[in-house]
Amino acid sequence: MTPQSPHLQDQFLSVCSRDAAIARFDAALGPLSPREVRVPLAEAAGRVLARDLSAPADVPPFDRSGVDGFALRAADLAGASAANPVILRLTGENIACGTAPLRNVPPGEASLIATGGPLPRGADAVVMLEHTDPLPDGRIEVRRAALPGQFIGRAGSDLARGEVLLRRATLIGAREIGMIAAAGIAEVPVFARPKVAVLSTGDELVAPGQPLAPAQIHDANGPMIAAACGENGAEARFLGAFPDQAEVLETAMREALQGADMLILSGGTSKGAGDLTHRIVAGLGAPGIVVHGVALKPGKPLCLAVCDGKPVVVLPGFPTSAMFTFHDIIAPVLRRMAGLPARGVHEVSATLPLRLPSEMGRTEFAMVALSEGPEGRVAFATGKGSGAVTSFAQADGFVQIGALEDHLPAGREVQVQLFTPALRMPDLVIAGSHCTGLDLVLGPLAGAGLQIRSLAIGSLGGLQAALRGECDLAPIHLLDPATGAFNTPFLTEALELLPGWRRMQGLVFRKGDPRFEGRDPQAALARALADPECLMVSRNQGAGTRILIDQLLKGARPQGWLNQPRSHTAVAAAVVQGRADWGVTIAPVARDAGLGFLPLAPEHYDFALVRSRMERPAVRAFREALALPEVRTALERAGFTPA
Amino acid sequence: MTPQSPHLQDQFLSVCSRDAAIARFDAALGPLSPREVRVPLAEAAGRVLARDLSAPADVPPFDRSGVDGFALRAADLAGASAANPVILRLTGENIACGTAPLRNVPPGEASLIATGGPLPRGADAVVMLEHTDPLPDGRIEVRRAALPGQFIGRAGSDLARGEVLLRRATLIGAREIGMIAAAGIAEVPVFARPKVAVLSTGDELVAPGQPLAPAQIHDANGPMIAAACGENGAEARFLGAFPDQAEVLETAMREALQGADMLILSGGTSKGAGDLTHRIVAGLGAPGIVVHGVALKPGKPLCLAVCDGKPVVVLPGFPTSAMFTFHDIIAPVLRRMAGLPARGVHEVSATLPLRLPSEMGRTEFAMVALSEGPEGRVAFATGKGSGAVTSFAQADGFVQIGALEDHLPAGREVQVQLFTPALRMPDLVIAGSHCTGLDLVLGPLAGAGLQIRSLAIGSLGGLQAALRGECDLAPIHLLDPATGAFNTPFLTEALELLPGWRRMQGLVFRKGDPRFEGRDPQAALARALADPECLMVSRNQGAGTRILIDQLLKGARPQGWLNQPRSHTAVAAAVVQGRADWGVTIAPVARDAGLGFLPLAPEHYDFALVRSRMERPAVRAFREALALPEVRTALERAGFTPA
Repeated sequence: MTPQSPHLQDQFLSVCSRDAAIARFDAALGPLSPREVRVPLAEAAGRVLARDLSAPADVPPFDRSGVDGFALRAADLAGASAANPVILRLTGENIACGTAPLRNVPPGEASLIATGGPLPRGADAVVMLEHTDPLPDGRIEVRRAALPGQFIGRAGSDLARGEVLLRRATLIGAREIGMIAAAGIAEVPVFARPKVAVLSTGDELVAPGQPLAPAQIHDANGPMIAAACGENGAEARFLGAFPDQAEVLETAMREALQGADMLILSGGTSKGAGDLTHRIVAGLGAPGIVVHGVALKPGKPLCLAVCDGKPVVVLPGFPTSAMFTFHDIIAPVLRRMAGLPARGVHEVSATLPLRLPSEMGRTEFAMVALSEGPEGRVAFATGKGSGAVTSFAQADGFVQIGALEDHLPAGREVQVQLFTPALRMPDLVIAGSHCTGLDLVLGPLAGAGLQIRSLAIGSLGGLQAALRGECDLAPIHLLDPATGAFNTPFLTEALELLPGWRRMQGLVFRKGDPRFEGRDPQAALARALADPECLMVSRNQGAGTRILIDQLLKGARPQGWLNQPRSHTAVAAAVVQGRADWGVTIAPVARDAGLGFLPLAPEHYDFALVRSRMERPAVRAFREALALPEVRTALERAGFTPA
Repeated sequence: MTPQSPHLQDQFLSVCSRDAAIARFDAALGPLSPREVRVPLAEAAGRVLARDLSAPADVPPFDRSGVDGFALRAADLAGASAANPVILRLTGENIACGTAPLRNVPPGEASLIATGGPLPRGADAVVMLEHTDPLPDGRIEVRRAALPGQFIGRAGSDLARGEVLLRRATLIGAREIGMIAAAGIAEVPVFARPKVAVLSTGDELVAPGQPLAPAQIHDANGPMIAAACGENGAEARFLGAFPDQAEVLETAMREALQGADMLILSGGTSKGAGDLTHRIVAGLGAPGIVVHGVALKPGKPLCLAVCDGKPVVVLPGFPTSAMFTFHDIIAPVLRRMAGLPARGVHEVSATLPLRLPSEMGRTEFAMVALSEGPEGRVAFATGKGSGAVTSFAQADGFVQIGALEDHLPAGREVQVQLFTPALRMPDLVIAGSHCTGLDLVLGPLAGAGLQIRSLAIGSLGGLQAALRGECDLAPIHLLDPATGAFNTPFLTEALELLPGWRRMQGLVFRKGDPRFEGRDPQAALARALADPECLMVSRNQGAGTRILIDQLLKGARPQGWLNQPRSHTAVAAAVVQGRADWGVTIAPVARDAGLGFLPLAPEHYDFALVRSRMERPAVRAFREALALPEVRTALERAGFTPA
């Protein structure tokens, strides 16, 4: 989308509250009745029953034996015991499964019967083979008395003819398949899956697997929303990403809506974006757009329309915004169309270890990851902003912050709505600075089935979480400027240092840049500082690398110094893409990015272990993995120097 | 299967404990490593990741704007406020999504930028459109200062190149699809679904949808086990039900195993059954059968084999036995083959309201349904024996009873292992006598989304549960022999009677039987009692109908009197199938079964409401449904007389 000059900006039609938006959308949609289709039993798993199912006949259809034994008359065995066995003649009939018995069982006689075999006329009980003995003359001795009805499964005892065996709206699983099959039903009336067409819009979008030109990104929303529709009972068709071209887009949208029950678009809803998508949506059918703009964060620029009875939705372009609004507002509609019950709300309580900022005037959802602290469960915010798709990965659920609050204080007990019904707490919680080397250590642990939660909250954040006992270990690389020592000066009694590895830091530049190539680091630096056209990229306050940069600059503030990203990777990207000409980052990142590298000083990446949690099996496993020869080799190959 | 004469019976090879059986099976199977396949992203939902996925490039690939606004240098805005706005020139470049900016942002200038647009060289912050004003000369006024980095999403801040984004063994859902797509990955390495061939054996089995000949039943196990395999990560192929014919069966089994990773048979494992299946399994490959007979109830006749590296399993023929052994012993193997984590154990505690009998010497599993009682959760056994497939329907989970216990006493607190991770307690709990008329009342409630639990535990059982406050209402039809009155004499202060309907009881016989046809009931009865060849079917002790029968018989004990099934339906079936010539049942059942009917007396089917639970919404809804004109009409059409 091309932004318009500010005075031409459209305001949102009218930003309304979440509840008002849902009410307007529902009113425009009217009652949504799912359609009914019939599917073969083998395809019914996972579907939702469209009507009550009654048994067309008794199950079992006849009285049958529950054991291998003899069908007989209980009255004949009155007083039978091991000491006084009763002798019965055999009718000669062996009743197998699948064939109807032909002979009556008169008093004094018995018929051999298999488990599941139909009870013969006259018999009112079965005795187990184990409680009988064959006599040489073909008769049998029975050593126990029998109660009438013993070991008999009665006709209709499982399902009586006409009995409702499963009710409308039941989700069909293996158990239900068994019941339907037992009742002899081969075709199952289920709700039709609503067809949803999903379409991404934006000139910047490229399908996964295709190379990116500068300024392009891969389309995450389309595939993600299509999968989320599938998880909510729909049959989704993802039509791909479309550029912002009016005719192409309108044709695609009209065709998509024709063959679908719902159309979901993602992208193109921000204030600065052109109103192309909305103009097209508004013309797709009556009544058109009913909500545009919801006081919800993330998710404000949501657009809800109903076009000739079909819901049409434009989701925000940022992935987490798209997913939240989808789950909060669209999924319930989809589930009604699919005949699925509303998704249950699964909540646990937890304490916030850190202040959670929020924006007043909007209902805000913050994703959180859970960990066990000494005082109970704690909830760390995992958000990296609504642009980040990985915010989801580490989150167990989310916290809702009311429109009237501008933050939730540290220590506040909150209700966490879980993404999945069952919460499995991670076996190992790591909080601190992330390093690609860490992935090499965690690989063997994950392979052994341990669930690992790794929260990238920076060295200082991790250290504080470790001091509060809310994680198992904190990866840190903190330089003490006073002593020049790494990490150790920052520990307390409650923590123990486990040495990790060294990462060489250095000055990075685009290969071939004559201002740096082949020079000594200090000489290169002096030349860069002398050139006002030579832009640097710095680092955020609190980063170990920032301390090194400040030492290098000795108070100088060259152009670009205010550009202060939070990661080694972002520094490399800025230089690769020409937004800066030099910066400081670690050797493996420079190598991966294909940058020139002038080494400055090694950085120590170590682990602060929480002493009170050191005996946990997952922490032991972590220490063992760190010492594995193959892990050390892998670290070296990746450019790290194990301690 | 044809039972063999007792002295020819094979004993089980050696019945072993559950744990020993699992250990033997695992040892014979060896390590089970899932295979890896690559699937397109669109088909990856529901699959399990086969290896760690790393980001092939930074996400986002460039620093980008998080809002619609202006990219500029934060230093230019030092001291800016509404009172003292800073004026900046525009570079003239409008940075849209999808195109790389061409112009530098020098000091004193700004570029218009859209949400998601790439940050231009020189800029280190973005201000929102809302905080600026356009001036007529094309410059802008900025009314706020900006922090460096403000509203910038850094390159690699979501995913840094080389960072592990998802770990091996992750179950892929919509969130994961979004992450994989954002990383630009179009093909996903997942574990192959193990192929399982499922085959039912038994001469008595007929596929659902096909008519039943006498002594035949519909095959429930095959479709059910195939669906259960699907729920545990497998791709199941159900090959149908096969008769017990050696050559046909062996050919089918060999072919099935050839194209599959696992073969599951159901049926043919009981002691009396021929050893046909086992002989074939034993010859399929080395080492062959490793376990035959497990001290597990239900599920004793389980047979576990490994044939040339592939698991081959013969499940018990009865549905609940088959499902329990499948979930307890087979599903874990299948999940390892599929690379799925072990299914989590989900437990809740509950009290047993009734004694739960068990067999000593075997680990026993009893299915239970949960209800809220005044003292907390209670667990009713739902078992109708392992032959009953409906035992599953009403059960929330099961209770394990140790091999050394012969019962669990009433009042015992037990751990209930839930079938599904999240327990939803029913809105309405009905416990007592079941009637097909009840289904007509419950239909509208289920349609309104209420979850109903209806436990068929008989009139007396229901009355007792109601007195203990463990259900909402109990349907009863109890005749007081002393007064001749129904139901009211059995109530206490804690219960209130809600009248239901009348069901005419009568003498049933096969139409055209000259001993009954066209006669007066008393005359027919007298004739039947006088004929020793004329077999009756009675009812169980405690049934209202049994009291009526005893009144009719005046102490007589005709042939068949010991045949005492527990339901109206089973009486009708016995007469239809010629196992008895007459009995007493209700008119709608007689009509559905096509039997002749001589009316005797109306029976009152009413509801004992628990007063302390009468204000519950679901109980109110039940009363309302009972009074609905359409429900009363439906009852009348079905042969009942609403009170």
